[in-house]
Amino acid sequence: MTSISFKNFHEAGKAVLHFLHQKFGFDLWMITRVEGNDWIVLQSEDHGYNVKPGRVFNWADSFCSHMVLGNAPRIAPYSEEIPLYASAPIAKQVDIKAYIGQPLLNEDGSLFGTLCAIDPQPKSRKIIEDEDLIELFGNLLSHILQREIRENEQIRLHERLRSEAVIDALTGIYNRRGWNQFIEAEEQRCKQYGYPAAIFMIDLNDLKLMNDQRGHAEGDRLLQQAATILKNTLRQEDLVARLGGDEFGILTLGHDIHRIEQLKNRIIAALKAAKISAAIGYAIRHPSFDLESACAHADEQMYQHKRRNKRH
Amino acid sequence: MTSISFKNFHEAGKAVLHFLHQKFGFDLWMITRVEGNDWIVLQSEDHGYNVKPGRVFNWADSFCSHMVLGNAPRIAPYSEEIPLYASAPIAKQVDIKAYIGQPLLNEDGSLFGTLCAIDPQPKSRKIIEDEDLIELFGNLLSHILQREIRENEQIRLHERLRSEAVIDALTGIYNRRGWNQFIEAEEQRCKQYGYPAAIFMIDLNDLKLMNDQRGHAEGDRLLQQAATILKNTLRQEDLVARLGGDEFGILTLGHDIHRIEQLKNRIIAALKAAKISAAIGYAIRHPSFDLESACAHADEQMYQHKRRNKRH
Repeated sequence: MTSISFKNFHEAGKAVLHFLHQKFGFDLWMITRVEGNDWIVLQSEDHGYNVKPGRVFNWADSFCSHMVLGNAPRIAPYSEEIPLYASAPIAKQVDIKAYIGQPLLNEDGSLFGTLCAIDPQPKSRKIIEDEDLIELFGNLLSHILQREIRENEQIRLHERLRSEAVIDALTGIYNRRGWNQFIEAEEQRCKQYGYPAAIFMIDLNDLKLMNDQRGHAEGDRLLQQAATILKNTLRQEDLVARLGGDEFGILTLGHDIHRIEQLKNRIIAALKAAKISAAIGYAIRHPSFDLESACAHADEQMYQHKRRNKRH
Repeated sequence: MTSISFKNFHEAGKAVLHFLHQKFGFDLWMITRVEGNDWIVLQSEDHGYNVKPGRVFNWADSFCSHMVLGNAPRIAPYSEEIPLYASAPIAKQVDIKAYIGQPLLNEDGSLFGTLCAIDPQPKSRKIIEDEDLIELFGNLLSHILQREIRENEQIRLHERLRSEAVIDALTGIYNRRGWNQFIEAEEQRCKQYGYPAAIFMIDLNDLKLMNDQRGHAEGDRLLQQAATILKNTLRQEDLVARLGGDEFGILTLGHDIHRIEQLKNRIIAALKAAKISAAIGYAIRHPSFDLESACAHADEQMYQHKRRNKRH
């Protein structure tokens, strides 16, 4: 048997892009994800445009943003004839004369991204006859993606099953070792599916004072209390770890900037209600800025916050 | 957006069969499963042969059995030209002049079944050019199937998470209510994927005697001991329940007839080693014979065994 078993959505997508390029030509075939204003290239079969996975365009500039709303056709053998495509900003940046696009959907019917193609030459009108084929590939890929996302949620839960080696004995939350493991696994998933994620770094201000003035038992209680508050402020799928001393890290998934600000305010309010003073910083992951960079940036923000507090 | 979200392998398969019929014609398109000598029709897009899901053919008689071994082509516009197809027994039962077939694989690379088509008229040789498309559909369906089978294993584990309402308080194994629930859920999966399964019914011979001569506490101990022995003889994914009084039921998945006989002997030997006398009967599920029928048949076998014992 020469049949192939695809390991995952990535391999299935690659085979579909390859087949579609063989069948229809088109210099660029892509699988993309839409995240707010970002239009993220997850996979590409590229024969001329030089568009690699990880590249981010402006969603509102794209042909696909009109296609998914049903305002412009899924197959345009000569895209300059379609006013919304002719006037799309991306057509000023790159040379596009023909277009194919198909939405990829999440399980709840919301938009995940697109399967799409562009070419610098107009194509035969006969390709319109293959709309059913493109649609079927889009639906099969959507289904594969949905299952894989659901399975990833299970994998994430399993990864986080509490193993002794990754738990901080004092607070019962993850230690730095657990943190490093999960950040690495999550970065892989973020890369593969274009997931958004954010990192918080939190540093308690009064641990040294507490230890010195009231003894280590009180200091330990402060750490335990802070860990409990952070855990209770987050969702089950978020991750909180004690990174050492009085420093905590949080990984939170799938948030936009407004929700991240809200979460920050919730954390500060919850700590304040327990009379715990802390410095906090955060950074949002982006395809051009991985989770490790986000950790470093959040750390920096946290130290700036700490310095500002000290000046008061 | 007019895109569809497929709920499962069944829906994805249906869409693929429908598309392939539109594109290639062919009076019959099928998704099949191979189980020993049985060739089980899981889905069909039927325009003339009158082959419905659940129908079982002889695998050795089929074109597909030669195709999956690579001994005959996956696309045969005129199948009578191919000696292995011309001489295949199924060609004597139904009128076949053209054939398309593609293996569907399990995750470990073993054969699950096939995606295939037949027609009573020869077809244009041009369809051979579409071999890549058929292969890609086969690979995508295999992948969807593999994920779904894996997810079903998770679902099965979750279903069996011990809830008070389905547990027999005395023995700690499932009660009749749990048994009925699981049998029903499993029958759905067996139907959808052509899974094999078998039912055992076991009846203890000496419970009444024990209760009468040595008291109910000893009788209860006998039931507990029997439950523990049965549980330990089975695999985690098998199901054992106390159906009431001194009767136990076992559901075991994916076994062939030899392994079922072995399992029966293992159960008898384990009970005998603990000096527990029991009557046992079993029946194997078949597409034409559902799990409920298998339960009734196993029960009958068990009573015959009991009567034979009594005559000695």
